[in-house]
This record gives sequence, C-alpha cells and structure tokens, in this order.
Amino acid sequence: VREGIAAIAGAGAEHCCVPLQGSGTFVVEAMLQTLIPRDGRLLVLVNGAYGRRILEIMRRIGRPAVPLECGEDEAVSPDAVRAALAADPAITDVALVHCETTSGILNPLAEIAAAVAASGRRLLVDAMSSFGAIAIDLRRLPSVTALAASSNKCLEGVPGIGFAVVARGAIERSAGNAVSLSLDLHAQWRGFEKNGQWRFTPPTQILAALDKALDLHAAGGGVAGRLARYAENCRTLVEGMRRLGFETLLRDDLQAPIIVTFRMPRHPAFRFADFYARLHARGFVIYPGKLTRQETFRIGCIGAIDAAVLRGAVDAVAATLRELGIAPGELYRG
Amino acid sequence: VREGIAAIAGAGAEHCCVPLQGSGTFVVEAMLQTLIPRDGRLLVLVNGAYGRRILEIMRRIGRPAVPLECGEDEAVSPDAVRAALAADPAITDVALVHCETTSGILNPLAEIAAAVAASGRRLLVDAMSSFGAIAIDLRRLPSVTALAASSNKCLEGVPGIGFAVVARGAIERSAGNAVSLSLDLHAQWRGFEKNGQWRFTPPTQILAALDKALDLHAAGGGVAGRLARYAENCRTLVEGMRRLGFETLLRDDLQAPIIVTFRMPRHPAFRFADFYARLHARGFVIYPGKLTRQETFRIGCIGAIDAAVLRGAVDAVAATLRELGIAPGELYRG
Repeated sequence: VREGIAAIAGAGAEHCCVPLQGSGTFVVEAMLQTLIPRDGRLLVLVNGAYGRRILEIMRRIGRPAVPLECGEDEAVSPDAVRAALAADPAITDVALVHCETTSGILNPLAEIAAAVAASGRRLLVDAMSSFGAIAIDLRRLPSVTALAASSNKCLEGVPGIGFAVVARGAIERSAGNAVSLSLDLHAQWRGFEKNGQWRFTPPTQILAALDKALDLHAAGGGVAGRLARYAENCRTLVEGMRRLGFETLLRDDLQAPIIVTFRMPRHPAFRFADFYARLHARGFVIYPGKLTRQETFRIGCIGAIDAAVLRGAVDAVAATLRELGIAPGELYRG
Repeated sequence: VREGIAAIAGAGAEHCCVPLQGSGTFVVEAMLQTLIPRDGRLLVLVNGAYGRRILEIMRRIGRPAVPLECGEDEAVSPDAVRAALAADPAITDVALVHCETTSGILNPLAEIAAAVAASGRRLLVDAMSSFGAIAIDLRRLPSVTALAASSNKCLEGVPGIGFAVVARGAIERSAGNAVSLSLDLHAQWRGFEKNGQWRFTPPTQILAALDKALDLHAAGGGVAGRLARYAENCRTLVEGMRRLGFETLLRDDLQAPIIVTFRMPRHPAFRFADFYARLHARGFVIYPGKLTRQETFRIGCIGAIDAAVLRGAVDAVAATLRELGIAPGELYRG
C-alpha cells in the first residue's frame, strides 16, 4: 500500500509514504507538527476553510504562521507568494491546499512550488481532495517536502487512514519536532522502516479496503483514467445545471473536477433545506456551502460514480425545480 | 453508539461519551492533552508498557509527569498512591492503566480511585483492554474524570475508533488545554453536542461495525456475560498450559481474564520464533512478550472466541511440544 501510494505521487526512491490512522485532518496536522521545525515559521496560502484549518492547527501547536489570503473564488497567485516570501525572510515553510474543497478551486501547485523553490523555502501540500485524480509528480517538484491525503477521496477507499508522501531527507531530520506522540510522523515512519509494522493498532479493515482501492485505481487507468472520468462527471453536472439556470461560483478555468459550487438561488420558492431534502428523497445527497462570504451549495463529482449518475442528479434537480414551480431563468430573481 | 458506550461505563447524566478517530493511543493522548490543565502535574502509576507510554505522551506534550513504578508482576498499591499524593501536593491528576496488557495484570481501580478521591485529586483511566468485560461503574468512582478505551478489544468491534467517557464538568472546563486540533477532546465533544456530527470525516464503516458490536455485547449478557465467557477462556487456557508444564508470570488473584503471560521455557529445544511459527501453522496466533525484565510470551483470551477455541490452542501447544521432543516438566530445565 505504501509503495502504491508513493507511485501515484510520482515519488522516487528519495520519497516514502507514511500512513497514519484517523481522518485527513489528523495527517495534515501530523505533517505540520513533524516537518515544520520548532523554530520554523509558516506561510499559509488561504483561499478557503481548509487553508484556515491549517492556521488553526498552527495556533494550537504554538508555532508561528502567517496567512496570505485571497478571495475564495480566486486561485492563489504565485507572484503573491514570491512577494510574501521576499518580504518575510523568517518564513521557513509554506503550506498550500491543492484543491480547496470549500469552493472546488484548483490552486496552481507547480507554479507555487517553483516560487517556493526559487526562494529556498519548503512547501507542504494538503492534497486531500486532489490526490489520485490530479497529476502530482513529486520528482518535478523539489520544493515539496510532503503532501498529505487520505484513503477516502479520489482513491475511493473508505475513511479511516490518512497518509503523507514525504521527502526522505526531510523525515530523517524531523525527530523531536512533533508535540504529540500519536501524530509524530517521524516516529510513525521509523516504525514502518524498522519492521514494516504500524506503531499502534492499525484499522486493518480500512487498510485492506485501501489495498483493493489501489488495485481498482490502477485498473481504471491510474491518475489519468480517474481524471478523465471525474472530468466527464464535472462537465455533465455543470452543463446540466447551467441548462437549468444555475450559476457556478468559479470560472471554468479555476474549477477542479472534484466538487462544484453553485450560487444559492434567490427565488422566494427556493429554500436550501427543502431542496436538499427533496434531492435526498430522490437518492442524491449534496453539500451545503462552506463559504463564509457568499451563499452557495455544492455537488461532488468524485467517488465510484460516472456521468450517468450525474445526469440522474441533474434530472432530480430539474424535477425538484418543477415541483417548486421555479422556471429556468427565474432562479436568481430575488 | 455514544449512549451505548456510556451505559457500559455505568455513566449517568453527568457523564458523556466522546468518540475519536484512530487507535487507542490516540484517544489516551487526547484524554491527557485535554483533561490535564496546562499547569497540571500528573502522577503516572506504572507497572508495564502502557503506563510508560503515558509518561512518553506527557513528555511529548510538555507537561510534567512523575512515575510511581512497581514490578510488572505486582498490582499498583493504593497505599503507595496515597503516600505519593501526600508527598507531592503539586500533583493535580493521576493516570492508571486498569488492565496492563504488558502482563495481563488487573490494577485495583476502585481502591485507587478512593485514594485519589480522598486526596482531592482527579483520576484518568486507560481502560483499553478491560472496558466491556470488567465492570466499571463511573457513578461509584467520583474521582474518575475520564476513562479511555477502543472499538476493538473487549467490545469486539474492528479497530479505528477510540472513545473517552468523561465527566461533563471536566470536559466543560477543558477548553484550550490541548496542544493539538485533531486530538482536542473538548472540541470533539462540542461538535457532537452542537449537531450530533463528527468534527472531521468519521470512519463510517468502523462506526457501523461498532454499533453492531454493541448490540452483540448486550445480546451476550453485557459486561457480566462477556466477563463470564472470557473468564472461562482464561481458566481453560491457564489450566491447560499448566498441565503442559508452563508457568504463568502472575499470581492467579492478579490475573485479568484478558491476556495471560507465560514464562519463556528455558529448554534448549524451545525457540520462541519457531514455537510461534508452528502454532501459526496450526491456526493460532500468539503474542511475544512485552516485558523488559523477564522473558515471556502471551496468549490472549478475548475476542469472538470461546473455551473450545482455547482448548484447541492448548492442544496445538501440546502437539508442538511433542514435535520438538519436549516432555512436560522439562520446559524450565535450562
């Protein structure tokens, strides 16, 4: 499993995969606790809730972090990163959320990694909702110290295991950084290197499911195959929803084919809780928005689903709008 | 699930159950991080590896802890606890491993809780390998602030979830103690109280299995039923192994019916790795010792097994000894 995950990350012999029990946030915190030195200073690139969560983790573990924020419908700008790094020489590390699930936006990893490399800093990547579907080639991203992801997003396993793919040099030098025993990725790595065993009881069934999920990922054409399926899902969803009059939050060139955010209709007959319940009754579970500034809702494109399922979702939305007596074109009339 | 677990702990309305993703160690660490104040000082009662692990966690999170150690084949003495608490007034909290899996010893929870109560301190209990099989009645143990256990020991679920049963007053006052976001039991509790949801993605399948495991626990007679089955398992194992000439590490009155530690034979034809492999080939997986001072191995009594399985294990040991040409009575001749 460790080798399969490392291969998906484009990792060579100079990287290794370290799995950790718990949700994605656990392994993101473990990555930050372990790989940022105790006297380090982190620049956090923020355009959504998961970037803010990294700031919250840093506050909890008592290590300095400064945000570089941009709008939730804008990608992080490599130029802004360059400027922030030039302005604050004390920064040692940078954290980026690759695909920010808050909006579904894809941040430009390669360009940001290049900016970080040019300034001699290290980049930590939360690749939770991109890993396995959007190509990441760690061999071509030398500033990336580590990325973190989980068993249950684009790998389509079940939840319970996170993992980091880490540069060996960085993990070797990270002893004693973590202020936690359970979340010490260095000790976890040493355990695997020593005897191939988890330090603490692993979630065995989740691990077996992840092993199978990796087989299915490879059988489906790997990262390219998964991207093609999700991209078709996303296209089907966005085109169908636009035909019904819905507007996406993001410009198409910023949209990752992972989750799509739609502006909340302002029609008086449209109430989100009711819309949600009616779709649920038709067999489709969607997401409330997680944005603070704009009213939105979200629909996911990932998982063991294909375009036929997304067409069904659009049909269910259409039927729901008919029930509510809302005609296309009226959605955003307040 | 939260209510079912709280009921097994003998918890009333003044307690609540807080589940957490990860292995047992994760929730033990979360309990320590969250419930010991930042200016607290912990007395750790140590007679095995899990007591030492609590010391290691405290060292990592940077909070003072002092050990009270006794032999790995002796139960923690309530008198010694009383004396240690009298000698160090700065101690705010005490940590105890109820059943120390290192040896299988049962520490006297009620007597230690009374000693802690008499000195006005608070007790935190690692009940990992006792919970669900050895009665704990939190309503009668007012000094116990919290106990921690997991889905996969005596509850017979699958691994991936730990939980703490916590006094409401203690969890309410614990905001800001944890030096981790993921392991903050206060924030986890607040999430459940707010909307019944996990803060971060839960291991859904593990949770469904735990729900079913709690049903089976109740159907099997609850704590008393499970204790009766495990006690018979333990008796069958110990009597059978003694007939073959094996010696237990513990006196019978200290032995919990969870896992049994046997002294390592000194017969020249007995090599543990070989013994282990031969039992494995017969369908039985045992444990190496975890003791530092004496050479031992261990055999577990818990899980979805009954006395017939333990008789089978003893038969497999007997057949293995015959293969090795070791007669009963010769095991401990060097």
